[in-house]
Amino acid sequence: MDSVKVIEIKKSVMENNDVQADKLREELKQEDTFLLNLMSAPGSGKTSCVLRIIEKLKDEMKIGVMEADIDSSVDAEKVAKSGVTAIQLHTGGMCHLDAEMTRQGIENLQTKDLDFVILENVGNLVCPAEFDTGASKCAMILSVPEGDDKPLKYPLMFSIVDLILINKIDCLGYFDFDVDAVRERIKKLNPNVTVLEVSAKTGEGFDAVADWIRSTREDWKK
Amino acid sequence: MDSVKVIEIKKSVMENNDVQADKLREELKQEDTFLLNLMSAPGSGKTSCVLRIIEKLKDEMKIGVMEADIDSSVDAEKVAKSGVTAIQLHTGGMCHLDAEMTRQGIENLQTKDLDFVILENVGNLVCPAEFDTGASKCAMILSVPEGDDKPLKYPLMFSIVDLILINKIDCLGYFDFDVDAVRERIKKLNPNVTVLEVSAKTGEGFDAVADWIRSTREDWKK
Repeated sequence: MDSVKVIEIKKSVMENNDVQADKLREELKQEDTFLLNLMSAPGSGKTSCVLRIIEKLKDEMKIGVMEADIDSSVDAEKVAKSGVTAIQLHTGGMCHLDAEMTRQGIENLQTKDLDFVILENVGNLVCPAEFDTGASKCAMILSVPEGDDKPLKYPLMFSIVDLILINKIDCLGYFDFDVDAVRERIKKLNPNVTVLEVSAKTGEGFDAVADWIRSTREDWKK
Repeated sequence: MDSVKVIEIKKSVMENNDVQADKLREELKQEDTFLLNLMSAPGSGKTSCVLRIIEKLKDEMKIGVMEADIDSSVDAEKVAKSGVTAIQLHTGGMCHLDAEMTRQGIENLQTKDLDFVILENVGNLVCPAEFDTGASKCAMILSVPEGDDKPLKYPLMFSIVDLILINKIDCLGYFDFDVDAVRERIKKLNPNVTVLEVSAKTGEGFDAVADWIRSTREDWKK
């Protein structure tokens, strides 16, 4: 039996995702709920980063987390232990979430009293980049073991986000990963994006992540 | 300018992918070309593993490689340096290859005189598992830094392959990855799959990979 709420997401019937996304974004704005869509390849450390972010912000914001996966509820169970509201979304094999699927999650999470909601999207560097979920802002994680060539191969994902975390920075000595080169490649695709180096393992860099969330949320509220 | 042939793959117009896949598989069988569809998440080390496999087998088989990516031709360039025929397939944003797209690659690679062709699919643990490419056999890579929970989250991919390489086994001490647990999870999904531990960095384990390819290809020829 699952110890967290698991939602079986239905495939969207809405035709115009962008319209639905703008609608959801506006509704969340009205209720003062800042929604961050967090994307990455499988195994980049999304859930571990979410736990570090919760650690930094849970005393000042009411936080909720939606964990999207094709199967299992291991991530939502991990997050629920940190004391915030967490639900698991099962996508029924779908490789991404769109706005209507995100809305199903939002309605189940009951976000009205929440200040900050993280949507952990399906682990995939391709499809989630193509669908506006209605989030206030988008972030992605690239982890050091994945290699510094990823912006060359998955340019859309790197282009559409507002924040990029380079995770597993603690194992930089072990892998052939050129941080300057990757920053250069990102800059060409997305000149204004914030790039922060972090380690979910050691906690390094998460003060800066919390600062980014705080100030971005303040700007967004204006 | 690209130093390797880059093919801009067109979106398939064929309706029944399974029929197209069987047709391609049969044609490749007739010309004695064994096609391996290699899948994984981004950054698991597909290209590095392909290079190790080429090293082991290039003196006994005529090998060709098709590198599929949304953008860039860095992978095909790396492979071409190893002395085998390599082409780059650009998927135009598509997150997977189907049989018709694979056929476009096969026709450009000119596989008639090749014994063994590797298709390096788009880095993605979701969509490529849903489309039969017409390959003789399917393989996937899970790398240690991605975590041992991946079979729970991406069950379809682990279910449909004939060979699983656990790569980056050299950094096992650095990450919290339980090899026995992952083998157990894989066994539940796919009891007969071969699971081999490898390191593309050190070369460890690739004699066993070459043996698997040799013997599987011999069985397939019968």
